Amino acid sequence: MAKNKLPKQAEDFPRWYNEVVKQAGMAEHGPAKGSMIIKPHGYAVWEHTQRALDDRFKATGHENFYFPLLIPMKLLEKEADHIEGFAPEVAVVTHGGGQELEEPLAIRPTSETIIWNTYSKWIQSYRDLPLLYNQWCNVMRWEMRTRLFLRTSEFLWQEGHTAHATEAEAREETLQMLEVYREVAEDVLAIPVLAGRKSVTERFPGAEETFTIEGLMRDGKALQCGTSHFLGQNFAKAYDVTFLNAEGQREHAWATSWGFSARMVGGTIMTHGDDNGLRLPPAVAPVQVAIVPIYKTDEERSAVLGVANRMRTALAGEHNIRVRLDDRDQHRPGFKFSEWELKGVPLRVEIGPRDVVDDQVVVAGRIDGNKKKLSTDEAIASMAGMLDAVQSGLYDDAKAFREANTHTISSFDDFAQGVEAEGGFWVGAWCGDSDCEIRITGQTKATIRFLPIEPEDPGAACMHCDKPGTELATWAKAY
Amino acid sequence: MAKNKLPKQAEDFPRWYNEVVKQAGMAEHGPAKGSMIIKPHGYAVWEHTQRALDDRFKATGHENFYFPLLIPMKLLEKEADHIEGFAPEVAVVTHGGGQELEEPLAIRPTSETIIWNTYSKWIQSYRDLPLLYNQWCNVMRWEMRTRLFLRTSEFLWQEGHTAHATEAEAREETLQMLEVYREVAEDVLAIPVLAGRKSVTERFPGAEETFTIEGLMRDGKALQCGTSHFLGQNFAKAYDVTFLNAEGQREHAWATSWGFSARMVGGTIMTHGDDNGLRLPPAVAPVQVAIVPIYKTDEERSAVLGVANRMRTALAGEHNIRVRLDDRDQHRPGFKFSEWELKGVPLRVEIGPRDVVDDQVVVAGRIDGNKKKLSTDEAIASMAGMLDAVQSGLYDDAKAFREANTHTISSFDDFAQGVEAEGGFWVGAWCGDSDCEIRITGQTKATIRFLPIEPEDPGAACMHCDKPGTELATWAKAY
Repeated sequence: MAKNKLPKQAEDFPRWYNEVVKQAGMAEHGPAKGSMIIKPHGYAVWEHTQRALDDRFKATGHENFYFPLLIPMKLLEKEADHIEGFAPEVAVVTHGGGQELEEPLAIRPTSETIIWNTYSKWIQSYRDLPLLYNQWCNVMRWEMRTRLFLRTSEFLWQEGHTAHATEAEAREETLQMLEVYREVAEDVLAIPVLAGRKSVTERFPGAEETFTIEGLMRDGKALQCGTSHFLGQNFAKAYDVTFLNAEGQREHAWATSWGFSARMVGGTIMTHGDDNGLRLPPAVAPVQVAIVPIYKTDEERSAVLGVANRMRTALAGEHNIRVRLDDRDQHRPGFKFSEWELKGVPLRVEIGPRDVVDDQVVVAGRIDGNKKKLSTDEAIASMAGMLDAVQSGLYDDAKAFREANTHTISSFDDFAQGVEAEGGFWVGAWCGDSDCEIRITGQTKATIRFLPIEPEDPGAACMHCDKPGTELATWAKAY
Repeated sequence: MAKNKLPKQAEDFPRWYNEVVKQAGMAEHGPAKGSMIIKPHGYAVWEHTQRALDDRFKATGHENFYFPLLIPMKLLEKEADHIEGFAPEVAVVTHGGGQELEEPLAIRPTSETIIWNTYSKWIQSYRDLPLLYNQWCNVMRWEMRTRLFLRTSEFLWQEGHTAHATEAEAREETLQMLEVYREVAEDVLAIPVLAGRKSVTERFPGAEETFTIEGLMRDGKALQCGTSHFLGQNFAKAYDVTFLNAEGQREHAWATSWGFSARMVGGTIMTHGDDNGLRLPPAVAPVQVAIVPIYKTDEERSAVLGVANRMRTALAGEHNIRVRLDDRDQHRPGFKFSEWELKGVPLRVEIGPRDVVDDQVVVAGRIDGNKKKLSTDEAIASMAGMLDAVQSGLYDDAKAFREANTHTISSFDDFAQGVEAEGGFWVGAWCGDSDCEIRITGQTKATIRFLPIEPEDPGAACMHCDKPGTELATWAKAY
């Protein structure tokens, strides 16, 4: 079998990632610096992820809308923390229709500003609330050090923007959407995640609280997989969004926003991939089953393709499985095995002339590498179940990996050496002081990935400054 | 019943359109000139349209991908006709990340240039062909005279970009996708369309042939509903896309592109709406059935909502119908009737206390205004069928309107007066000369909407210049 020419993960993970993304046809660099072309095999993973998210948004009462790409600079500047956070990353349109614009326009880095500016018109009374809206769109944050999917100037995402009459309701919404993200990450992308609260330093600019789900990649680095923000009344105050409550008093509305992006295609690659290529969770795999016919003579070809076609029809039809019959004549079976392995197809079916005679096929699993012989009908009947087993197997593997790479901090030095040598999550007491946090990050390159959703007493002194601990912080080096 | 405050279509169609779009919650103007906010009720129509298109793209073998928003100006300029057509409409990013860019970047007005630049890397051999790809995205064509949905700087669309080894295959693809557009326009949006070929003047910049589907709006103006372009080898030559054919010779690839945009939400409004508001085809209506409970006392409320909830559950569940139970206490039934009428909901169910006693409900049709009493179970069982009848009723109405407004041109003067007075489609012989076409447009403001897909001898002299007719042209004033 022709082996895929990938660097080994253990030797050079960044190069492995870059190569697998390109060789498996997931994405490549675009012509403008910082830009990315998402190729069909990568885009399909995002489409399945979108569908999973969108179904859940709707099931929790949200509707989609669409706000403009371009935001007048003046609008962007009204919430002070927000503009301070995003100004350095903004791309600016200065010319349109052959003329210089009177006022420059920013390409949205995120849409709180333009949306809350409009909510001031949509919200008058408590009866107008809540507003439960989301948009699917592209955003732009200027970035020259591209990493495909993970860090690009333009990226695809969804951003939810809700408005509420009470603080309690907005807080509940924030955590509800975090739970939706956790569910999609774990049940759909098979990425085990930990949910928590960001430190002040890591908060979204303009938020009162940022909640996050964090996964651990196979190189020991953490990836922020989705964030949900409780924005308090900051945007309502900046954009003058008030409503009359049931008692006839005017109040500012309470806000949330939450985002999940196509970087998670990268997260899926880095959570499950191995030295032979991608291992895609069946829930998002563009091709769930690849059928590879094996033959030499025309007669064999015809017999094998007869069975292969019957199987494809049965799997795609009554079993609703995404199946590809690889009947390309110009490639040998070994080449095809390797290619589907590289592309991460969960199950491969091999059918040769002898199999046709014996009315059986070989099913090879991408994850465990196991091959088993089954009668054709049995293979058809059990394929959906085998895909479910792959889905949970990937999750279980990733969870075991995370658990093996999560450490309790015994001392700052142990932590500093350990996170440098092996990566992983490191959990320990912290004083809650941002200056201390920044010093720790300066020394270790690790950041606080999250704190518990509800603060809890760590029962120990800060691992760095020895002041009383106020938070149990989980640290990691991160993307 | 509180009547909607809309201008009459017959008195001021543009104002009617603008008001119904806003009052029905479809869209509104954004803060930057030329921009639009698509509100949830409008966006949902687009989502259903997208799904209908995307399913058909996939059924015809296409996959989705995603190319960057920003295109280096140099790339954009390689195909001469193309840049000449689009340069006046381009928006330009000159600053990013706080710095002036070395090279300005255009926001894509369409993506042939960046995609064909990349196809030069993806295509080497005839075995790489065809490439059958599509992307869903936003594009920008600078425009200050905004008309919601119909003409905005940024708009949402899909653009298909395919590459083929032979001219015949590319031409077949062009017409196949035109047929997909026709099917979605007619079967999903209930807009009857005529398919044809554009004159040279109206062609897409860089195309060899542009094909179109055209609908007739209720004010007698035509709307281009989708276009499919045979691009020949123009882009392959400009971007150096060649392949080795089966005989080992190098050839340029053949191209198509095709687009369908969210302007069709506007087309749906203008095809079906009436003086009371929208009339949405069930296939794309965000709400297909609105249930309005009628009660005065708490006891009545409880009895009526009991039946209403049972009905909602049955319709949404086993019948898979998009149903809304309007149980808002702050509005009277008459207000709700009016609002659902304005929003174009195809069927309304009214349930009062007497109906509960008699185990019946009233079903009111938005299209014919008819009300009928049905037993609750009968209403539930027949609702899907009634929605189908609405869908085909809207199509039939619009087709009858178009047929009544399609005229054979007897003389240029009759045409010029007729199209000015009544709008509509006007069909007559034309010499095929662009200068003559431009003079006719200058005198009448009508444009050639389409020619037959295959040229046919009109058997008469040109209606304007008396030279021999070479084409049977269909004229109209258009959006």
